[in-house]
Amino acid sequence: MSEALWFPIVCGVLALLYGAYASRAVLSASAGTKRMQEIAAAIQEGASAYLNRQYLTIGLVGIVIFLVISFGLFDIMVGLGFAIGAILSGAAGYIGMNVSVRANVRTAAAAQKGLKEGLDIAFKAGAITGLLVVGLALLAVAGYYAVLVSIGAEGRAMVDPLVALGFGASLISIFARLGGGIFTKGADVGADLVGKVEAGIPEDDPRNPAVIADNVGDNVGDCAGMAADLFETYAVTTVATMVLASIYFVGNGALLIYPLLIGGACIITSIIGTFFVRLGASQNIMGALYKGFIVTAVLSALALLPITAWAVGLDSEFTIGVKSFTGWSLFWCGVTGLVVTGLLVWVTEYYTSTEYRPVRSIARASETGHGTNVIQGLAISMEATAIPAIIIVAGIIVSYNLAALFGIAIAVTTMLALAGMVVALDAYGPVTDNAGGIAEMADMDEGVRKITDALDAVGNTTKAVTKGYAIGSAGLGALVLFAAYTEDLAYFSKNVAEFPYFEGVMVNFSLANPYVVVGLLLGGMLPYLFGAMGMTAVGRAAGSVVVEVRRQFREIPGIMEGTAKPDYSRAVDMLTKAAIKEMVIPSLLPVLAPIVVYYVILGIADKSAAFSCVGAMLLGVIVTGLFVAISMTAGGGAWDNAKKYIEDGHHGGKGTDAHAAAVTGDTVGDPYKDTAGPAVNPMIKITNIVALLLLGMLAH
Amino acid sequence: MSEALWFPIVCGVLALLYGAYASRAVLSASAGTKRMQEIAAAIQEGASAYLNRQYLTIGLVGIVIFLVISFGLFDIMVGLGFAIGAILSGAAGYIGMNVSVRANVRTAAAAQKGLKEGLDIAFKAGAITGLLVVGLALLAVAGYYAVLVSIGAEGRAMVDPLVALGFGASLISIFARLGGGIFTKGADVGADLVGKVEAGIPEDDPRNPAVIADNVGDNVGDCAGMAADLFETYAVTTVATMVLASIYFVGNGALLIYPLLIGGACIITSIIGTFFVRLGASQNIMGALYKGFIVTAVLSALALLPITAWAVGLDSEFTIGVKSFTGWSLFWCGVTGLVVTGLLVWVTEYYTSTEYRPVRSIARASETGHGTNVIQGLAISMEATAIPAIIIVAGIIVSYNLAALFGIAIAVTTMLALAGMVVALDAYGPVTDNAGGIAEMADMDEGVRKITDALDAVGNTTKAVTKGYAIGSAGLGALVLFAAYTEDLAYFSKNVAEFPYFEGVMVNFSLANPYVVVGLLLGGMLPYLFGAMGMTAVGRAAGSVVVEVRRQFREIPGIMEGTAKPDYSRAVDMLTKAAIKEMVIPSLLPVLAPIVVYYVILGIADKSAAFSCVGAMLLGVIVTGLFVAISMTAGGGAWDNAKKYIEDGHHGGKGTDAHAAAVTGDTVGDPYKDTAGPAVNPMIKITNIVALLLLGMLAH
Repeated sequence: MSEALWFPIVCGVLALLYGAYASRAVLSASAGTKRMQEIAAAIQEGASAYLNRQYLTIGLVGIVIFLVISFGLFDIMVGLGFAIGAILSGAAGYIGMNVSVRANVRTAAAAQKGLKEGLDIAFKAGAITGLLVVGLALLAVAGYYAVLVSIGAEGRAMVDPLVALGFGASLISIFARLGGGIFTKGADVGADLVGKVEAGIPEDDPRNPAVIADNVGDNVGDCAGMAADLFETYAVTTVATMVLASIYFVGNGALLIYPLLIGGACIITSIIGTFFVRLGASQNIMGALYKGFIVTAVLSALALLPITAWAVGLDSEFTIGVKSFTGWSLFWCGVTGLVVTGLLVWVTEYYTSTEYRPVRSIARASETGHGTNVIQGLAISMEATAIPAIIIVAGIIVSYNLAALFGIAIAVTTMLALAGMVVALDAYGPVTDNAGGIAEMADMDEGVRKITDALDAVGNTTKAVTKGYAIGSAGLGALVLFAAYTEDLAYFSKNVAEFPYFEGVMVNFSLANPYVVVGLLLGGMLPYLFGAMGMTAVGRAAGSVVVEVRRQFREIPGIMEGTAKPDYSRAVDMLTKAAIKEMVIPSLLPVLAPIVVYYVILGIADKSAAFSCVGAMLLGVIVTGLFVAISMTAGGGAWDNAKKYIEDGHHGGKGTDAHAAAVTGDTVGDPYKDTAGPAVNPMIKITNIVALLLLGMLAH
Repeated sequence: MSEALWFPIVCGVLALLYGAYASRAVLSASAGTKRMQEIAAAIQEGASAYLNRQYLTIGLVGIVIFLVISFGLFDIMVGLGFAIGAILSGAAGYIGMNVSVRANVRTAAAAQKGLKEGLDIAFKAGAITGLLVVGLALLAVAGYYAVLVSIGAEGRAMVDPLVALGFGASLISIFARLGGGIFTKGADVGADLVGKVEAGIPEDDPRNPAVIADNVGDNVGDCAGMAADLFETYAVTTVATMVLASIYFVGNGALLIYPLLIGGACIITSIIGTFFVRLGASQNIMGALYKGFIVTAVLSALALLPITAWAVGLDSEFTIGVKSFTGWSLFWCGVTGLVVTGLLVWVTEYYTSTEYRPVRSIARASETGHGTNVIQGLAISMEATAIPAIIIVAGIIVSYNLAALFGIAIAVTTMLALAGMVVALDAYGPVTDNAGGIAEMADMDEGVRKITDALDAVGNTTKAVTKGYAIGSAGLGALVLFAAYTEDLAYFSKNVAEFPYFEGVMVNFSLANPYVVVGLLLGGMLPYLFGAMGMTAVGRAAGSVVVEVRRQFREIPGIMEGTAKPDYSRAVDMLTKAAIKEMVIPSLLPVLAPIVVYYVILGIADKSAAFSCVGAMLLGVIVTGLFVAISMTAGGGAWDNAKKYIEDGHHGGKGTDAHAAAVTGDTVGDPYKDTAGPAVNPMIKITNIVALLLLGMLAH
């Protein structure tokens, strides 16, 4: 069956070709006036400076880990897997960001012609990032798998390098998410606090010394960070599904390749979908974007049938334990994944759109002050976890009943196969956000600013929606990783002749085992501690921006009158240093936690207790991580849009006390939704994948 | 061994006698001037009106459940157990509140003489509530157990009535916690928002129409609510430990009575401890309170040795599964419980006292605005979960290694045996808070207000510390309940001849079972949903208070000049209605959840899956509940004291922007620490105890 590998590789190349085509289209558009290009250049420069520095730091950590994996714990093939995952995850973010910082000014220029033209450039830029993410991820996994097959790797020699590939992607992703998140929200919160609140100047006003940093942040956080994140989820989940297939269906290569074929098919449907993103007569931007998304989803469901027939045969029978199922069951698992995606998108929109009760209740609560705004926002953020949890639970039950644990894996794989389109919707956000900033700073026509604002408002929703999807898929993907951990462990314990370390290991994952309870509690703690670190880092970074901006207002006369230019690069520089410094320790938390817990429990009790405890910890991280992440991203989105709703003239509109309260809520929501919340995604998976690697290492 | 039952019963009576003695001492003190008595009467009246109405509503729900239990699902002995638990839990709260609303004015009067005299009255009032709570709880469990023994009840006929007693206590407790919490924080937030923030009048200013409601709230929330809460934790944990003993040590009554003897001994040590609460030369109030606490803890550790020797014999050997242990092991488990208590107190104080980094970091963040204050507060609230989680984990590991699951149960029982002293420290809080309010409203000397303020400041810390303890013990107590669920289930499944419903049930609690994952996620969801409801309710209640106060300021001329009296009773009335209405649905959430989940999963899959899912749900509630509750109560306490720290003159002191930001943080923290957070405690246990009852019902 491994001859079918040509298909995902061709599809991956197609995604890159689409990226090249769309890049040409974006870059050939007009970059506007000299003033606009100057501003855009400043943003570009800041973004590149930040990203170079970030990758340098990550690179150093990465090289150490590469050496340890290649020459210490494992071998060079495993090390290479790690390097491929890390480098391509970084590349996805890097290229995406580079497109984004060139598309922003072109979107602003195109908006002079009209809404349609602005949308076209901005969405194309997003689609480039989206398709690069899935294309590179699929190429990485399928390509490296092909290499491993060609050198005759089997068993652990096949699994370990692929898991290491996932680990490489995860490691980059958590650094990018957290570093980018701290940068972007440090800048945003800092700029808002002094600019909007103290000095009373509008957002993106060129007199604000932190304004360039704020625009740089959109690119390094929302674009590069999200790209690395979804690259990782995609790669890790595909690998975990393949590992499960290799355990459940020994000798049946078809099921190993099946997830790769699904990924390949959905790249084609995503490319088709991008051409359906068109403004209709109603000029509804969200409608235009959803059209592309829906076309992709429906075509993917349709494509799943022939792909399943080709890869595994619709009527072929499979067995896992006592459960028998057919290719049809797997097809329906894929459909379940698509339905879960649709439902998660819907519920996130309900909780974060200005149309519905949640956001409006926060806006109403703003009338009675800052305190009630924040209380209501926190209430909504907690409430927003309930329906997604039920959707995920339903997805688990349905796909498990269709095809046992492998059914869950296929559902998540299919869910993630849409990542190209979803990232396109997300990466569109920072482009329009920047375009608005450039329009404001370059003093462009009121009409242009109106168009960029309209594009940007939708960007807020798509960003929130993507986060809901990213977390849902991360949670489910982590469950697949967890299943891989338990199955691996069972396999090692059964074959102690081959894996002598596991001699006498009797893992007891029962909830009645106190070490399982201990593991659940320790795992549950991690997202809280990690979230706390992220929030503190943003608070600290923002505080230093506030101090710097106040200093510039004080020491550089003429800024407020517009006669002197603020020193933008100082703020960019400060944030770069702060973000890089602050991202390291929290990022290492999920890497070290499984290892430390394993050895501590081993010291107190024995191997069996230690493996049970680490396993439970993985699930503990998933359980609280899911709630922490959903509450943070949904709550943050709701706060943001409650402010927008008031700015649209409700509850008194701009300049009232209600508006001031809503700005406070928005500020609080910023690190929630753009730093701590989304960084929980890679965190959940890193904990799981490190545990998986730990097993591999002990078995080695 | 059941002849030893005289001991806990005598100790329970001793606690009531102490209550009578201390009540006389409090009531015989001077109640101050006519003006003071007028204000106190208004608070008394409001508190009684609220509590009567609350108990009427709970009573109606209670009677329905009593009838269903007695004549539908079980029998009259089970129904009676429920009634005893419910009535005595209610009584503990009711009496405690009645003492509290009489001690407040007497504390204010005594403060005219000096700090020592004020502290004496306030602490005595707290000690009455504390000892009533443990006395009534111990009498309820030991007394009803004696009754059941005397009528020859055995097996399920013994267990079910005791579990129902726990359920009765839990049900009252969740209503009292939530209703009281909504009332008190609706009043507090509402009063602060219009009074402090809008009108610029100080706290407890008699011109504020919500001021009486605010003082009523302290009593019904902090005093009656906390009393019912700890009554419940105490009763439920003791019952669960007895249930475990009855399963593990069939025919060995000594271990069944052992937890009751521990409870009895600690009542004596608590009474002794109260006499050590004395101001030293340093006039350190916290030191005086801690002296009493430390004496109680040390004496309890010492008393544990003879009690263990008497009850079970220090060298007697016991076996659970493959684990053997002696009476010595049980003694050390008890000591572990005491050490865990001490560590939880210490860490809560670290996170909520103005002396250390966490509170000061929030105060510092206030300088840059409302937003950064809230961000830092949220960060601290999340961070504050880590060390308590590790302490609890260490407690589990140590006591499990000493004496298996029964060891954990004994550790928690001993931890809770200190509840009398801990509640005394807590119930002291609302008395001093009210005393300050009365001093302010009655326009007493500046010096008196200084003394009541000093007493009140300590009250903030003791309240936070008690909450840390309450949640830690609730989490561990719930683990004991969960153990009872799994052991009960195993017992039923093994004896299907006697319990035909369990024919063919093969419970699989392994984390690899997807229904376990589903249960963990559904359980994890409950504290989030419940917390969201509690926060929303407070926001809504506070909003309506704001509207009412604004109306009175507008429509009753002369309030601000002090020439006209505001209509205090309107605010009390509104809050009473709001709290009663809002408490019902969230309170039913944990009652219905296990039942609904059981039958839904039963419909989808089978009994085995349904029992596994419900079991996992119980643990899911504990895992996220612990983090939600700790983060809320610690965060709320930290926000509160950050405001106090600024009011003490740091970062510019009162009236600055930093102070305004700190007031916002305090407002946000209010429903966190006094409504949603503490109400999670009974919620966790209700879910567990309802599941236990469900098992009993299905076995019936």
